[in-house]
Amino acid sequence: MPLPDEGRRRVVIEAVTPAIDAGLYAVKRTPGEAVTVEADVFTDGHDKIAVRLLHRPAGRDAWQEVPMRLVDNDRWRGSFIVDQVGRWEYTVEAWVDHFATWQHQLPRRMQAGDDITSELLEAAAMVRRAASRAPDEPSRVWLRDCAAALESAGPTAERAALALSDELTARMAALPDRALATRAPRVFPVIVDRERARWGAWYEMFPRSAGPDPERSATFQEAAERLPAIAAMGFDVLYLPPIHPIGRTNRKGKGNALVSEPGDPGSPWAIGSHEGGHDAVEPGLGTIEDFRWFREQAERHGLEVALDIAWQCSPDHPYVKAHPEWFRHRPDGTIKYAENPPKKYQDIYPFDFETEAWRALWEELRDVVWFWVEQGVRIFRVDNPHTKPMAFWQWLIADLKARDPGLIFLAEAFTRPKVMRYLAKIGFTQSYTYFTWRNTKAEIEEYLVELTTSEMKEYFRPNFFANTPDILHKFLQEGGLPAFRIRLLLAATLAANYGIYSGFEIGENRPAAEGSEEYLHSEKYQFRQWDWDRKESIRDLIAQVNRLRRAHPALQTNEGLRFHLTTNDHLIAYSKAADGDPSRLLMVVSVDPRMPREGHVCVSLPDDPVGEDERYLVRDLLTDRTYAWLGAWNYVRLDPDLPAHIFRLERVRAA
Amino acid sequence: MPLPDEGRRRVVIEAVTPAIDAGLYAVKRTPGEAVTVEADVFTDGHDKIAVRLLHRPAGRDAWQEVPMRLVDNDRWRGSFIVDQVGRWEYTVEAWVDHFATWQHQLPRRMQAGDDITSELLEAAAMVRRAASRAPDEPSRVWLRDCAAALESAGPTAERAALALSDELTARMAALPDRALATRAPRVFPVIVDRERARWGAWYEMFPRSAGPDPERSATFQEAAERLPAIAAMGFDVLYLPPIHPIGRTNRKGKGNALVSEPGDPGSPWAIGSHEGGHDAVEPGLGTIEDFRWFREQAERHGLEVALDIAWQCSPDHPYVKAHPEWFRHRPDGTIKYAENPPKKYQDIYPFDFETEAWRALWEELRDVVWFWVEQGVRIFRVDNPHTKPMAFWQWLIADLKARDPGLIFLAEAFTRPKVMRYLAKIGFTQSYTYFTWRNTKAEIEEYLVELTTSEMKEYFRPNFFANTPDILHKFLQEGGLPAFRIRLLLAATLAANYGIYSGFEIGENRPAAEGSEEYLHSEKYQFRQWDWDRKESIRDLIAQVNRLRRAHPALQTNEGLRFHLTTNDHLIAYSKAADGDPSRLLMVVSVDPRMPREGHVCVSLPDDPVGEDERYLVRDLLTDRTYAWLGAWNYVRLDPDLPAHIFRLERVRAA
Repeated sequence: MPLPDEGRRRVVIEAVTPAIDAGLYAVKRTPGEAVTVEADVFTDGHDKIAVRLLHRPAGRDAWQEVPMRLVDNDRWRGSFIVDQVGRWEYTVEAWVDHFATWQHQLPRRMQAGDDITSELLEAAAMVRRAASRAPDEPSRVWLRDCAAALESAGPTAERAALALSDELTARMAALPDRALATRAPRVFPVIVDRERARWGAWYEMFPRSAGPDPERSATFQEAAERLPAIAAMGFDVLYLPPIHPIGRTNRKGKGNALVSEPGDPGSPWAIGSHEGGHDAVEPGLGTIEDFRWFREQAERHGLEVALDIAWQCSPDHPYVKAHPEWFRHRPDGTIKYAENPPKKYQDIYPFDFETEAWRALWEELRDVVWFWVEQGVRIFRVDNPHTKPMAFWQWLIADLKARDPGLIFLAEAFTRPKVMRYLAKIGFTQSYTYFTWRNTKAEIEEYLVELTTSEMKEYFRPNFFANTPDILHKFLQEGGLPAFRIRLLLAATLAANYGIYSGFEIGENRPAAEGSEEYLHSEKYQFRQWDWDRKESIRDLIAQVNRLRRAHPALQTNEGLRFHLTTNDHLIAYSKAADGDPSRLLMVVSVDPRMPREGHVCVSLPDDPVGEDERYLVRDLLTDRTYAWLGAWNYVRLDPDLPAHIFRLERVRAA
Repeated sequence: MPLPDEGRRRVVIEAVTPAIDAGLYAVKRTPGEAVTVEADVFTDGHDKIAVRLLHRPAGRDAWQEVPMRLVDNDRWRGSFIVDQVGRWEYTVEAWVDHFATWQHQLPRRMQAGDDITSELLEAAAMVRRAASRAPDEPSRVWLRDCAAALESAGPTAERAALALSDELTARMAALPDRALATRAPRVFPVIVDRERARWGAWYEMFPRSAGPDPERSATFQEAAERLPAIAAMGFDVLYLPPIHPIGRTNRKGKGNALVSEPGDPGSPWAIGSHEGGHDAVEPGLGTIEDFRWFREQAERHGLEVALDIAWQCSPDHPYVKAHPEWFRHRPDGTIKYAENPPKKYQDIYPFDFETEAWRALWEELRDVVWFWVEQGVRIFRVDNPHTKPMAFWQWLIADLKARDPGLIFLAEAFTRPKVMRYLAKIGFTQSYTYFTWRNTKAEIEEYLVELTTSEMKEYFRPNFFANTPDILHKFLQEGGLPAFRIRLLLAATLAANYGIYSGFEIGENRPAAEGSEEYLHSEKYQFRQWDWDRKESIRDLIAQVNRLRRAHPALQTNEGLRFHLTTNDHLIAYSKAADGDPSRLLMVVSVDPRMPREGHVCVSLPDDPVGEDERYLVRDLLTDRTYAWLGAWNYVRLDPDLPAHIFRLERVRAA
């Protein structure tokens, strides 16, 4: 067995966290957030060690570093703040600190009555070696003078005091001998996204249905009329399903009918016609210039436009003729449409990612996304990413974010848990979730504990859509507007990112069929007109909740979510506090859309108890009413008209 | 961002277990044991995948492989048996199985009434490609005939039946197209030790105290007189503290006195004198030849001799003059003795592992161990490994085991948990534990659950010493012989490896001082004589327990340990079953040495319930008495004279 290159690195560094799959994948942050790193660090014997957390923006040579402190049981902790968007990295370095060891032992020797003359000479030698590492002459002089004093014939007690002095301690700590330092076996990556990745309220709409004429597509110009109302509800992101030309071959009719009628617009996800493909705009909506104009209008209203990426083609897509090698073929040479037997999707040709021409395909698709970036789009909702190869996404996202690290990719994967997690690991900025199917108190608590306290919190940013064009949950179908209020309040206060699909604000809840989660008269297959001003609406509540989200940092992060006990299984209570914010927000939500529910809520948390006699005020930010509460458990009653409290806890701590 | 070399590997393999620190360290096994491997494996979309577990003795080119099966939630499992000592390795490979996907879809297409003519042609093409991969002409012919039949104009139903037939399925599964297979990102190591590493009963003795004259060292010849009695107690390993010449300078006197009296033999751990160092034998014991003779005698009695490795020198060690550069020096040039201020060990010079000459030092120490291997010693108990660099042990053990994979190294580290675990990770075969300090039911259960159910079970083999020359626990000091019985029974039935230090069998329990765990008249510093035949003895119980250990595979492994409920906090109950053994052993032990304890024990385990009306027999292997039990909960009573049952459960299952 060959000897190692250097056998004298005595410190061991293990179990660095956070480390997704041992550092294979990045943790995610936004500027201003901390990366708190821990590691098991130890050495043989009784020597003292020094441990440093090293960090830098990726690509830079020089590391910044901060000391790590011993927590307990050989666990060390340190923290750094990321202050710019892009890739970062960190690692841990540690070494035996002989001077600190010496300092630790000296008082023990003195208490034992030992002669420390020889020890003082050892210290002097260490100080002289540090002097030789000092970067400037004054330091060298100071340390050499100090060494001389330690070696002198002066009183032992005085020399010992000098050896243990704060100034010498600090100077020696600043000039460590790191020749035999150990580095953690790898560098751990961080992806720092812009703030919008961390929090935002999304609104999804079909622009073609936003016009005055139900027989034709609205134009972007007409759709822009909706922008003030959407902005007034306080949304941050406006997400549009695909805006590209729609195929005519096997076009789906209303309600997903196999055959379309004349005038049926088809599904926006059946992309491509003779009018163009993924880099073109459906003529009914307008031109590329019209889209750019619409995007600018949206931005003037504080709405960032997100586009859909759906890697599939209608049979009429220009790719089909130009690149038949990108598709699967039958033995007779015809191209295969999408299917998951017995289901068939005749209006769609999937790409064949096993094509020999995969390189050209990957690069083309990457270029398509970049085309839209050049049109000013920096947020993309990716359709069914779990049906395309993982390696493709890993490359595409890394490639594009290397050009523009502010890009945001939301994974629309509703699939098995490990696949959803993997998509987040390999680069998706945000992820759709199971939230729509988590409706009871127990389901919600269990899911949120997983999302916000497991390792997932480091890389999986949930975006809680309360509905989508594909998901109208039974809870909404059966619960009416109160159910919409409940789901809005939960989504908007449980997750820093949430969204609704238009129609939600007016309680649209007619299913395509009994037991179906599809909408009746789904906008996916036809033009619709909506009465946005109708009386039955929760738009004011949405506006109010989004205002609170903008005002309270606690609602802009998933950190610090804690569930509170209640005496009623229909009442769910949780609090959030942003880092450094002394007052928590306490949400109490009734998950019953049918009747009023009452009970007691426990304000205490195991690590933040409320005294039995403690009196304090809670202000409901939704009603602006203030309540005087006493002790941990207090009474609440919520009814379907306003099924939540959002309390600001204003407890004054006894010092 | 450059494209990957191959973008069409669509399968993802994650979270392979067992994998110590992501595969950096080996799991441990003995021949005949299984390595059961799991991994998260999935691909995009709906395609079927095939997953294989690959394994081989390290250094061999060809992999053996077994299929892995889907457990649940994208988790796959497979298993292989290691059948020879040495290093092994395993990994996981998986690929999209297009033929299986096709087979899965076919019945669904047929039920939907689809025309499957084109699909049959696709299958034929896949079969033809498989034929081209077939290793022999008959297979090629069979497959080509099959393809022709699939392409024929025969009845569709018949062709579909052929396509789904067991024979074609098996042949296609045996000839997969693995060109785009994914391999787990690394190979995972296994260390396969000989069986003695897995289980054994150790007996520790100072041979110098086994003679007729308390004024001088016993010789190996005299010490051999003890072998029949030790063998009769059923021990497997006879461990001797260091047998090397002992230094005279600063030799410790009786009871660890700073100054020795004439005739005091000194501590065997103060190694080295003008008579030799680590490769010599203390003249009082005899010569190297005497040692070899003693070792052979022990082997004739079924006892394998283990030696002590203690890397430290007396001031008189030949190394001190020959290699002063291997030690630490004071500013005045003298060599520093060992210390942990204010504690001093003046009779010992530690090696300076930070010496520039570390390479020569490492190689010399490695050669010392190999010297003893050449004398026929293959088990080493390593003294205080945690005070020498971890990298040194990792190299030394790997180097020596590369020469003789049957070597066993027991780490005598009583230190912080992560350091103890790390020593096991980097190569120690077995480890001392906290067992001596775990005496209550709660302490024992918590510790054993950690050892036998956490990841530690894969690499940390506990050796439960009930006492050592350094550890005489208060429980033994206060509890008398009943306490010795309890600790023996616990050690011998909880852990597959356990040991006692001589004197345990006759209940030696006088401490050096109140509150001390040191023995009075410690053998570490003086010759002793023992009355091995005295009446107060548990040697018959030891013999009986060791016979049971040899007869019952369940006691030769730490696998399958389960704790059972009891109604008394002084009664601890646990069962063990070796793999494939239908009858469990159920141990019930009273941990109270003072008085009888009674209560009920629950035979049921959550996954192995006992019916309310179930009648069955339990035979106590210690008393050979049989009890008729009914249902899950049954009464037991234990007293200090025999504080345990070792039941053989003979339940007959209703089919």
